Amino acid sequence: MTATGVERFQELLSQRAALGPRLAPGDRSGVQYNFGAGNPDPGSFPYQGLTQAMADVMEMEGAAALTYGGFYGYQALREWVCHKLKVFEDLDTTPDNILITNGSGDALGLVIQTFVNFGDAVICEEPTFNGTLQALRRNGADLYGVPLDDEGMRADLLADKLEELAKAGHPAKLIYTIDTFHNPAGPTMTERRRLEILELAKKYNVIILEDDAYGELRWEGTPVKSLFELDDAGLVARTGTLSKILGAGTRVGWVIAPASMVPYISGFNFGGSVSPLTSRVCYYYMRGNLEPHVAELRQIYHDKRDAMLASLDEVLGGTDATWSRPEGGFFIWVKLPTGTSQAKLAQLAAPHKIVYNTGPNFMPNGGAEDHIRLAFSYATLDELRNGTRLLSEAILAARD
Amino acid sequence: MTATGVERFQELLSQRAALGPRLAPGDRSGVQYNFGAGNPDPGSFPYQGLTQAMADVMEMEGAAALTYGGFYGYQALREWVCHKLKVFEDLDTTPDNILITNGSGDALGLVIQTFVNFGDAVICEEPTFNGTLQALRRNGADLYGVPLDDEGMRADLLADKLEELAKAGHPAKLIYTIDTFHNPAGPTMTERRRLEILELAKKYNVIILEDDAYGELRWEGTPVKSLFELDDAGLVARTGTLSKILGAGTRVGWVIAPASMVPYISGFNFGGSVSPLTSRVCYYYMRGNLEPHVAELRQIYHDKRDAMLASLDEVLGGTDATWSRPEGGFFIWVKLPTGTSQAKLAQLAAPHKIVYNTGPNFMPNGGAEDHIRLAFSYATLDELRNGTRLLSEAILAARD
Repeated sequence: MTATGVERFQELLSQRAALGPRLAPGDRSGVQYNFGAGNPDPGSFPYQGLTQAMADVMEMEGAAALTYGGFYGYQALREWVCHKLKVFEDLDTTPDNILITNGSGDALGLVIQTFVNFGDAVICEEPTFNGTLQALRRNGADLYGVPLDDEGMRADLLADKLEELAKAGHPAKLIYTIDTFHNPAGPTMTERRRLEILELAKKYNVIILEDDAYGELRWEGTPVKSLFELDDAGLVARTGTLSKILGAGTRVGWVIAPASMVPYISGFNFGGSVSPLTSRVCYYYMRGNLEPHVAELRQIYHDKRDAMLASLDEVLGGTDATWSRPEGGFFIWVKLPTGTSQAKLAQLAAPHKIVYNTGPNFMPNGGAEDHIRLAFSYATLDELRNGTRLLSEAILAARD
Repeated sequence: MTATGVERFQELLSQRAALGPRLAPGDRSGVQYNFGAGNPDPGSFPYQGLTQAMADVMEMEGAAALTYGGFYGYQALREWVCHKLKVFEDLDTTPDNILITNGSGDALGLVIQTFVNFGDAVICEEPTFNGTLQALRRNGADLYGVPLDDEGMRADLLADKLEELAKAGHPAKLIYTIDTFHNPAGPTMTERRRLEILELAKKYNVIILEDDAYGELRWEGTPVKSLFELDDAGLVARTGTLSKILGAGTRVGWVIAPASMVPYISGFNFGGSVSPLTSRVCYYYMRGNLEPHVAELRQIYHDKRDAMLASLDEVLGGTDATWSRPEGGFFIWVKLPTGTSQAKLAQLAAPHKIVYNTGPNFMPNGGAEDHIRLAFSYATLDELRNGTRLLSEAILAARD
């Protein structure tokens, strides 16, 4: 059969494009309790502050904001990222370490393209962030998962996997890790574990892609030095974002990497530099508000986490269900009680218009059918209390 | 020799990254006459209009602007692109034909990645836009150039090249063309030529990537239907941008493509949708100002072209130099008088702090040493008159 007009292009798709189209998700209008995506709290957005920032940018450097920008991003924003790293982590960097990107997703995609050829072996935690799984799959990565424990990715199992792949002549090219407030599982990797994983990366010559989208939002526990900071071999690229501390709609993020690596990563930014306009508006707002704004956000998300945990405790406390108690970030990872049917749970949750994510979405190669991920970031405190109670009751009723 | 710390990553670069880093251009501060990049006129930027648009967006839909956005871009902006196509070209499209991108460069990069594998044959005009050459090279394209005449890309030579590549078992995958106000050479492809090229694309089964960054800015001559409109085989993807009609600093552009092709192209947008914030600010401004703003811009660039042409005529009129007289766009392509030395010209222009681009930058496989490209878009009228006269005098003095 000859292809008809609109289908002819399909014969011509590149190897990566032939993996399939990127289809829009279903309509989520009418949702009552949105525990799905990691959307930031809309009540926290600085509407007036951003309006004022825009007015200031237009008045003070409108012409620069509206034409092509700095090659690796707006220089003052690169400097501000360094400032942020110093304030929050006492970490010394220079703007040469910073590449401004179109949000964290773009940052991850750029690093993946810098190192991963179609078919290359890539190791990630299982479970891991579903957005990055999509970017890895789109780039043809051959994915291998390593489980976590309370200290983060299991270094012993990682060592086994690296050795096995090396012996098979298919060595791992990149390790992807969410080492702080793991999404979805919760734990923060300990420093001991980080050092073990860095040693393995050096031994097997593997890039580490460290995804840190939530690190600023810690309300409990003690910060741990990043893999980027602990690395002494120039093998770590780390990503960050304004999505969680200002607003995801800005689409402003960054890569933190060895200075000599930045120009390679930048090669995949075909759109030129990230919007000089948006970069300036964000910078003008954040430069005066970083610490008080983040302090406010920590309180907001701490309260939200507690509201969701309280309803989980209240209804599921007597079962063998378990769930994470993250010290920061946006998510709770729930292991459902023995015998819970995901299909039945979906049926029972639907009338309440509750949205959440099921475990298999976060798995590189299947599994986690007995898990769900709940985001506590977006819903109001009342929605978190009531919706989590309704969902927990549905979980109880969904056991076979 | 063992690689030292910061160099270790270089052994791990992907095939595309190993082509080389993306290095920042030299410092251009202190430039007096900037005829280099296609930067829009800074006097035309609607500073107050954008400030007001931001205030309106924050007041009317700030929460939506600051969180994750529509999958293929902000829906109202997709609709507005359709409206613009109707107003300027009487072309009927639907939002399903539109993918919002981070500027035109991103749009081009996305389409290239959708169809071009490393090593695939790609045909472009010679000369062609240097930015796209970089994106094609980064993706490993094997580049073949086809010269232009006054009607645009030479269809007879294109046919020869397509046949030659097919016979060699290395068929062309994509034809890249700037068919309106060609950058840098100037001509607009005639409808007759467009139809010939579309027939060739169908015969040889090749995607056409139609780059239209300047089409709205026509002050002379008659518009020609786009390849996208004339195509009846679903083989054309066309790119557009707000860079030239609002401001390049917005980094907002789009792909216009068959609806079934859009989800494939979108697969390479790893950063999620384009900034919902920036998309709304641009839309809020443009929806009420499209036609008067573009009318104003046409006058501005028409006057600027004439100012540059007048000085070229005045000084170089008696030589065998030739140059384009574009009916729109930002550039004049100058063939230098016989015997002009590019090296000597660069030496003589330097003290005047004049920046321009030399011909070889625009060539897929070398050549055009006797050409320079002058952008008349950015400089003021006085700078255009005086700088072009100074440069033309330098050209006269640079003959061997």
